[in-house]
Amino acid sequence: MPFRVTILGSNSAIPTTKRKPTAQLLNVAERFLLIDCGEGTQMQLRKYKIKMQRISHVFISHLHGDHYFGLIGLISTMHLLGRKKELHVYADPQLKEIIMIQLEASKTELAYPLFFHPLDYKNLKLLFEDEKIQVKSFPLKHSIACCGFLVEERQLERRMISEAIMEHKIPVNCIPGIKAGGDFTKSDGTIISHWELTKSAHRARSYAFCSDTAYSEDIVPIIQGVDLLYHEATFKNDLQDRAAYTFHSTTGQAAEIAKLAEVRRLVVGHYSQRYNDLSCLLNEVQEVFPNAELAEEGKIFEILRTYDTNS
Amino acid sequence: MPFRVTILGSNSAIPTTKRKPTAQLLNVAERFLLIDCGEGTQMQLRKYKIKMQRISHVFISHLHGDHYFGLIGLISTMHLLGRKKELHVYADPQLKEIIMIQLEASKTELAYPLFFHPLDYKNLKLLFEDEKIQVKSFPLKHSIACCGFLVEERQLERRMISEAIMEHKIPVNCIPGIKAGGDFTKSDGTIISHWELTKSAHRARSYAFCSDTAYSEDIVPIIQGVDLLYHEATFKNDLQDRAAYTFHSTTGQAAEIAKLAEVRRLVVGHYSQRYNDLSCLLNEVQEVFPNAELAEEGKIFEILRTYDTNS
Repeated sequence: MPFRVTILGSNSAIPTTKRKPTAQLLNVAERFLLIDCGEGTQMQLRKYKIKMQRISHVFISHLHGDHYFGLIGLISTMHLLGRKKELHVYADPQLKEIIMIQLEASKTELAYPLFFHPLDYKNLKLLFEDEKIQVKSFPLKHSIACCGFLVEERQLERRMISEAIMEHKIPVNCIPGIKAGGDFTKSDGTIISHWELTKSAHRARSYAFCSDTAYSEDIVPIIQGVDLLYHEATFKNDLQDRAAYTFHSTTGQAAEIAKLAEVRRLVVGHYSQRYNDLSCLLNEVQEVFPNAELAEEGKIFEILRTYDTNS
Repeated sequence: MPFRVTILGSNSAIPTTKRKPTAQLLNVAERFLLIDCGEGTQMQLRKYKIKMQRISHVFISHLHGDHYFGLIGLISTMHLLGRKKELHVYADPQLKEIIMIQLEASKTELAYPLFFHPLDYKNLKLLFEDEKIQVKSFPLKHSIACCGFLVEERQLERRMISEAIMEHKIPVNCIPGIKAGGDFTKSDGTIISHWELTKSAHRARSYAFCSDTAYSEDIVPIIQGVDLLYHEATFKNDLQDRAAYTFHSTTGQAAEIAKLAEVRRLVVGHYSQRYNDLSCLLNEVQEVFPNAELAEEGKIFEILRTYDTNS
C-alpha cells in the first residue's frame, strides 16, 4: 500500500514561471487527498498524470490565495468531466461561501455532491477516518487562521507467523481471535501466547503538513516522530525578523522543529520568490537537520514500510 | 504606435497541459488592456515577459470560470508586488462581490485603487476612452450574460503636407486650424483648401473580441470592417447542434460572421478540448474566410497602419 506525497507546487505567495503555489497530492493506501490548491493546481495534476477524479478529500490550510485560488477551477473541471462521486473539502467556513458564489454566478449546478467541513483553529481535531487512515488538523501560528494536517495510517493488527500455525495446528477459526490479541489453548491445555504466534505489522506511517506558520513549538507534540514532515521555510536565517513579522519560518526554524519533534525526514517548501537557487536554503536546513530535502514541483516523497526491531 | 494582441490562452472550459483558458493582452498605443483572465493568466504574463503592472484595464466577457478564475490571483499578485496605480475592471457586477469576499477572507487591503465597472448586456456601450483609444462592449448570445469588446483607435487628424507649407509659406500658428479642417487664405486673398494642404492619417485600427457566443448576426453591424476579429470557434461544423445547445459557434459560423462583417482578418479560438490537432478547425474556417488564423498561446497579432488610397 503506497504512502506517497507528490509536490505539485511549493512556492510562497507569488508564483514564478518555474514555481507554482502550494499544492500536494497524497496517495495513502489508495486514498487520494489534496492538501492546498493554489492557482493552476488542475494543470499540475494533468502535467503529472494524476487522475483528478480520484481525489476524494481536499484540505485547505488557510485562505491566503496561494493556498486555494485553484480550488474553484478544480471543482468546475471535475464537474465538466462528469464527476458523480462526492468530494469533501475541509477548510475555513468562508471558503464555502467563496465557492458557492462562483458556482451561482456561472449558473453551475454541480453534478456531484460537494461537502464542506469547517476547520477547528483551536484544537487538534480528527477530520476524517476510515479503516485505513486518519487525518487530523491542528492549529498553526499564522497571520490569519491556519491549520496543519496530520495524515496517519492506522496501526495494523499483528500478523500470524505461518510456521507457528503449522507447528501448533491452529484452526482457521481461531486466527482472528489470536490476531486481535488472544492466546491459543491447545487440546492438551497448554497455552501459547499471542506474542509467540504473531509478529508485528509494519509501523503505521505518518505525514505532517505545516504551512504557513511562524516558529511554534506548540506543534512539536502533535507531529512527534512522524515519518515525513513538510514544514515551510519561506526565508533564509538572515531574514528571521521578516519571518516573524510575516508569520513565516526560516530554514533554521523548520529544521529546529524537525529536530525537536524527532521526525524521520524533513521536506521544506513555501519558498520566497526572492530565491532563484534553492540550494542555499537546503544547506541551512541540513546544518541543523541533515535528513532534509527540498520540495520541488513533481518530486515524489515515498514513505516506505518499516518494522519495529523488537517485533 | 503599436496595436498588438497577444494570446495568453485560447482554450474552452477545460484547460489542458498545452492550452490555457481565455486571456489576451492588448497593447494599443501603449495602453495595456487585458481581455478575460482564465486560471493561470498571471503565469502566462510572466512566461511571455509582459509586465503585469502596466495593465490598466481588464475586461471580463462573462462569469464562466474559464474567462475569469485567474483574476483574483492577478489582483493579489499586483498588490504583493507593490502596485500603487489604479486598476479598472469591466465585468458583470457580481464579479466585484466575488473578488471582494476573497480579499476579505485573506484580510488583504489592496495598496492600489481597484474600480469595478458593470457591463451593460443589452446595448452597445462606450466603456472607456482617452485621447488615443476607445473600448466599447456589446451583447453576445451565450448561456449566461456575456459581452464582446470593440477596441478602436481614435481617428487621427489629417497631417500637413510639408511641401505645401513651404510652397504657400504657411505660418506655424495657422497649422492647428488647417489640420482641424480649415482652409488657408494667402495674403493675396487666394484660398487654398484644407484638402490640398493635408493628407490623411493612417486608418484608425480596430479589434473585436467575440467569445463566448452562439452564431448571431446581430453583432455584424457593430464589428463591420474591423482590422482583426477574434471569434470563438469551439466546435467543428459537424457539431453544429452541440454548438447551438451550448451557445457556442462552429468554425463555419465564425467564418460566416467574418465574411458578413467584411473584417480584414479573422482569428479563431476557444477550442473544445476534444481537438488535439487544431488544423482541422482552421481548414474549415478558411473554406469560408481564407484570411484566418488560429489563436495559439504566445502568438502575437499585430495590426499594421494602413492608409486610405484616396488620401
